[in-house]
Amino acid sequence: MINIGIIGAGRIGQVHAKSILTGVPEAKIKAIADPFMTEQTEQWAKSVGINNVYLDHKKIIDDPEIDAVLICSSTDTHCPISLEAIAAGKHVFCEKPIDHDLEKIKSVISALEGKNIKYQVGFNRRFDHNFRAVRDAVVKGSVGDIQVIKISSRDPAPPPIAYVKISGGIYLDMMIHDFDMVRFLSGSEVDEVTAYGAALVDPAIGEAGDVDTAIVTMKLKNGALAVIDNSRQAVYGYDQRAEVFGSKGCVECGNDRASTAVISTVDGVNSEKPLWFFLERYMAAYQLEIRSFIDAIVNDTPTEVGVDDGLQPVLIGLAAKKSMEEGRPVKISEISI
Amino acid sequence: MINIGIIGAGRIGQVHAKSILTGVPEAKIKAIADPFMTEQTEQWAKSVGINNVYLDHKKIIDDPEIDAVLICSSTDTHCPISLEAIAAGKHVFCEKPIDHDLEKIKSVISALEGKNIKYQVGFNRRFDHNFRAVRDAVVKGSVGDIQVIKISSRDPAPPPIAYVKISGGIYLDMMIHDFDMVRFLSGSEVDEVTAYGAALVDPAIGEAGDVDTAIVTMKLKNGALAVIDNSRQAVYGYDQRAEVFGSKGCVECGNDRASTAVISTVDGVNSEKPLWFFLERYMAAYQLEIRSFIDAIVNDTPTEVGVDDGLQPVLIGLAAKKSMEEGRPVKISEISI
Amino acid sequence: MINIGIIGAGRIGQVHAKSILTGVPEAKIKAIADPFMTEQTEQWAKSVGINNVYLDHKKIIDDPEIDAVLICSSTDTHCPISLEAIAAGKHVFCEKPIDHDLEKIKSVISALEGKNIKYQVGFNRRFDHNFRAVRDAVVKGSVGDIQVIKISSRDPAPPPIAYVKISGGIYLDMMIHDFDMVRFLSGSEVDEVTAYGAALVDPAIGEAGDVDTAIVTMKLKNGALAVIDNSRQAVYGYDQRAEVFGSKGCVECGNDRASTAVISTVDGVNSEKPLWFFLERYMAAYQLEIRSFIDAIVNDTPTEVGVDDGLQPVLIGLAAKKSMEEGRPVKISEISI
Amino acid sequence: MINIGIIGAGRIGQVHAKSILTGVPEAKIKAIADPFMTEQTEQWAKSVGINNVYLDHKKIIDDPEIDAVLICSSTDTHCPISLEAIAAGKHVFCEKPIDHDLEKIKSVISALEGKNIKYQVGFNRRFDHNFRAVRDAVVKGSVGDIQVIKISSRDPAPPPIAYVKISGGIYLDMMIHDFDMVRFLSGSEVDEVTAYGAALVDPAIGEAGDVDTAIVTMKLKNGALAVIDNSRQAVYGYDQRAEVFGSKGCVECGNDRASTAVISTVDGVNSEKPLWFFLERYMAAYQLEIRSFIDAIVNDTPTEVGVDDGLQPVLIGLAAKKSMEEGRPVKISEISI
Repeated sequence: MINIGIIGAGRIGQVHAKSILTGVPEAKIKAIADPFMTEQTEQWAKSVGINNVYLDHKKIIDDPEIDAVLICSSTDTHCPISLEAIAAGKHVFCEKPIDHDLEKIKSVISALEGKNIKYQVGFNRRFDHNFRAVRDAVVKGSVGDIQVIKISSRDPAPPPIAYVKISGGIYLDMMIHDFDMVRFLSGSEVDEVTAYGAALVDPAIGEAGDVDTAIVTMKLKNGALAVIDNSRQAVYGYDQRAEVFGSKGCVECGNDRASTAVISTVDGVNSEKPLWFFLERYMAAYQLEIRSFIDAIVNDTPTEVGVDDGLQPVLIGLAAKKSMEEGRPVKISEISI
Repeated sequence: MINIGIIGAGRIGQVHAKSILTGVPEAKIKAIADPFMTEQTEQWAKSVGINNVYLDHKKIIDDPEIDAVLICSSTDTHCPISLEAIAAGKHVFCEKPIDHDLEKIKSVISALEGKNIKYQVGFNRRFDHNFRAVRDAVVKGSVGDIQVIKISSRDPAPPPIAYVKISGGIYLDMMIHDFDMVRFLSGSEVDEVTAYGAALVDPAIGEAGDVDTAIVTMKLKNGALAVIDNSRQAVYGYDQRAEVFGSKGCVECGNDRASTAVISTVDGVNSEKPLWFFLERYMAAYQLEIRSFIDAIVNDTPTEVGVDDGLQPVLIGLAAKKSMEEGRPVKISEISI
Repeated sequence: MINIGIIGAGRIGQVHAKSILTGVPEAKIKAIADPFMTEQTEQWAKSVGINNVYLDHKKIIDDPEIDAVLICSSTDTHCPISLEAIAAGKHVFCEKPIDHDLEKIKSVISALEGKNIKYQVGFNRRFDHNFRAVRDAVVKGSVGDIQVIKISSRDPAPPPIAYVKISGGIYLDMMIHDFDMVRFLSGSEVDEVTAYGAALVDPAIGEAGDVDTAIVTMKLKNGALAVIDNSRQAVYGYDQRAEVFGSKGCVECGNDRASTAVISTVDGVNSEKPLWFFLERYMAAYQLEIRSFIDAIVNDTPTEVGVDDGLQPVLIGLAAKKSMEEGRPVKISEISI
Repeated sequence: MINIGIIGAGRIGQVHAKSILTGVPEAKIKAIADPFMTEQTEQWAKSVGINNVYLDHKKIIDDPEIDAVLICSSTDTHCPISLEAIAAGKHVFCEKPIDHDLEKIKSVISALEGKNIKYQVGFNRRFDHNFRAVRDAVVKGSVGDIQVIKISSRDPAPPPIAYVKISGGIYLDMMIHDFDMVRFLSGSEVDEVTAYGAALVDPAIGEAGDVDTAIVTMKLKNGALAVIDNSRQAVYGYDQRAEVFGSKGCVECGNDRASTAVISTVDGVNSEKPLWFFLERYMAAYQLEIRSFIDAIVNDTPTEVGVDDGLQPVLIGLAAKKSMEEGRPVKISEISI
């Protein structure tokens, strides 16, 4: 039995807790910590059998019975808590991004060196059934040599301006998932990016120094080209699609819908919109990523999304940001670590 | 907290157990009983916190702490156990069909009269997201007055011949779900049926006195026409579709697939097959039906699929059987209860 | 060069004329005849190079230079004109149905015996790209042994009541196309039918002695089952679909649409309705059937839709009518020729 | 009656001839000219009633009875023949591109000034039913303010290397259609482009100084972003898709297929590939563009694709070429005319 401590009791912390409670019988959540723990959350935790509820995450770090921690707290705490957990010999599942600061990520990588500690980064989309089916087709050779990768990723509604200001910008906050997806689908690193962006959804996002609409073109090290488009607002719902095109064909995936129902009337043929947002679309993926993390611990195998998979998209995101700011293509190698 | 006893620890009994364990916090499974309880099942039950594991279901009936029973045993036991449970004042969730014998069903109906006992029949498809979306469109008026209902229901592989022999025949064993679906989607009773059937999948099914391919046409009491086609073997997977056509339009639903991935190559454009069988397609529906049963108890509301909903499809199934045997249309009113 | 005479200058006569003018260079329309020839039609005919415009079709029959006639006049004239044309040694393309009277059809069959005259019946749907693709898959063996055939055929709007009264009823007027389609897709004759019908679209159709909504179930001689549903009014447009299910799989075809455009908004995901009616859906098929008729003449090969293909659907239609009237299954063999 | 002269009797010249012959009754092809006129082509021309067949196009220019010319000869002749035709007072339909040399295009624009001569450029895709449906949705306001435009355009097979060498490169030869499409769908001019390209399909294309795989990102003057991807080889057929995303939704169009047939077997669910190439996909569009050209003459209205619509995509193509060569974003204003 693996004992788990969850640090951060917000939405995503609770999602992971439920995944373990309902789908990972060999793991037990021994404790949950959050400096802003609400009474309601505490009651929920107790009701599902999490007996130790703390304000201070150190109590989890210091508990020798706890084998693994899930870091679901705010991004600025990911690195320090990772370091504490690694020092205490615990396996770590860390929400994305590890950090926006390369030095900090580097310190985590250094801390992991030589230790048999499992470290997984929360790029949940790698566990989505649709993207996984695309990747399976690629790995199986169905599309031959990869030539072009296209990814669309659009949120249903923009976050609050207050969040935008501390988010690190669209490339590090939102498109980072897509940079990871390009790496996941291609099996290749990225060589160069050119970023275009504009504040078309809400001028306040532009005033906050960010963009809400962005297209990034990429050269991959394997020679292929890739392009990602992001929007902070697709009014019809969460639009998450990918396409890999190659010498033998093309594989693409579309959105999930609440049902397959189609209604034909004088007004047209109407089908369901995409599922609303990430909790609806990726709930099964969240379960699978935790399942995978526990499997890596139990079987002593590498995690499916390691610390370098946490680093690379940050490098690409920083390069994209630089590209937009300087109005020129930027090599990933220009981003010094 | 509602205390539950599960009678029958086979596949479907375990499915319901898991639904309660993971999704119905206000219910607790106090006991499970099965005359053929295996050691493996017993271990599983204990591991998920079901502490009382019995061979004799009477121990569940006699336990005054148990509020509700789920009858998941073989069809021939549905009625006697229902009667015992009702006599003991317990709420009953009974797998479909209640029975193939009308007198027996009648005895259950009589036993329920005047008692505030919740009785739900396991027509799980009513809780499927696709069929529910079709019905919602109908109820909302999107298709206007119903004129035609079409249902396709095809299993991926036929059951063993031994099962076919005791199944009651395709109309009572398989198409009974579709008879229920016609009632569910139309909100109308059935007036008359004409059944065509043939053993085209496996001659052994014909030799066992049954058919494996069947089409039943129906006149509904609301004036609409309906048609159902069944096959015991769709080699591409579980094919479950419905269509309601009316004065203002048409609503139809298709199959669910493992992913939305589509692969285009020189060989064509290939997408995923339908999910393989009922456990894959209807797992969420199984959870919702149990959720609904518990809600009916907690809120003291009628169950969504009552005892009459258990009776009517049996009447239609018997009429269909008679129609095929006698080569003529048969009124439901000819089937005397 | 094949010289053609067109008898009947209404809509379908003009459709065939255009097919020849634009797509059959080895045929020349020498004359067109119609007792109700309008000035407008005459002008059109002259403008496209049809120099001989008659009121009396006998002038076409008597013209020794004319090799083939297209009979596009009213149904009651199909047989007598066929007989005249055959007697004059001309090839005949006759619109469907040949007649509703079996004796009359029989007289045409007799007249053809021993003569090398090409006789084609206008079951245009056999030349539709979608139905042809379904049949090609069947012939290729993609679905294995046929077990079930399903056809939906729904018009966008009912014909005038005056037409309904002389139409011969839905089975002979509308579903006759679908009876032909069952034969085309299955390669089998029909053994027995059971017809259900109701006047649900317009009570006036019921008062005229007809139904507007119909379902016919069929046993085929090859053992397969088939079902057809018809409606005189699908408000969303011409709904023409077919499905053949068998031991190795299923092939189905859907409707054509004006474009592949799909619009996603807060109101749903909306795509184009089916093409409005037969002229939109089947224009290419009309061209191909005439092309095929001329090919049969030029190459001295059998026509793709012979006189027996004109007879059989009438037999099935009469059996369906009898089935509905008598409320029982009717064997095709009961319909005496 | 408009008298037409066709200059260039190759494939596209014949396509336009057939469009006029079968669909434009108010136009008559009086002559066709080609310096490499084959005997076979001459026979075909005579057989369809084109009585004047020349080697020298000047005979068409000099014929005072000819109202309009279609320039379907090689690209390098487009400008000189345009100038001759304009000088002779004839309306001009000129295949795309007018030229790759801006000075030459400028000379045509100058020649047209002050004259009531209809000049249409052959951007046939503007007349495609799918792209037009996308544009109609945009114009109707269904997607609100445009934020992102995405276009995929992939040929089924690369052209011969000999052609690649004189083609002007992928941006001027192939993507020029997509540059036009961005202008058509957005109603906006382009401000800046960044081009990525690689020779991934065939190294010989790279050796010829061109690329076969390309992605171009664009800033439009209306603030929106756009991206186009091209490949010289999609083995599954001609892949032509577009998507316009905006504040109120998204409209996209897919490929046309030979039929709607879908085959489900143990191997998956298989549907038809896209139509093979431009003649299959755009035949109806070719007819409509000629129809539109003649309408502009008859009604004395502006052509739907004027000379400036011929110029702008060349400017964008030259900017894209420069962007790839110099590895930086290029403003359209940098391309001096």
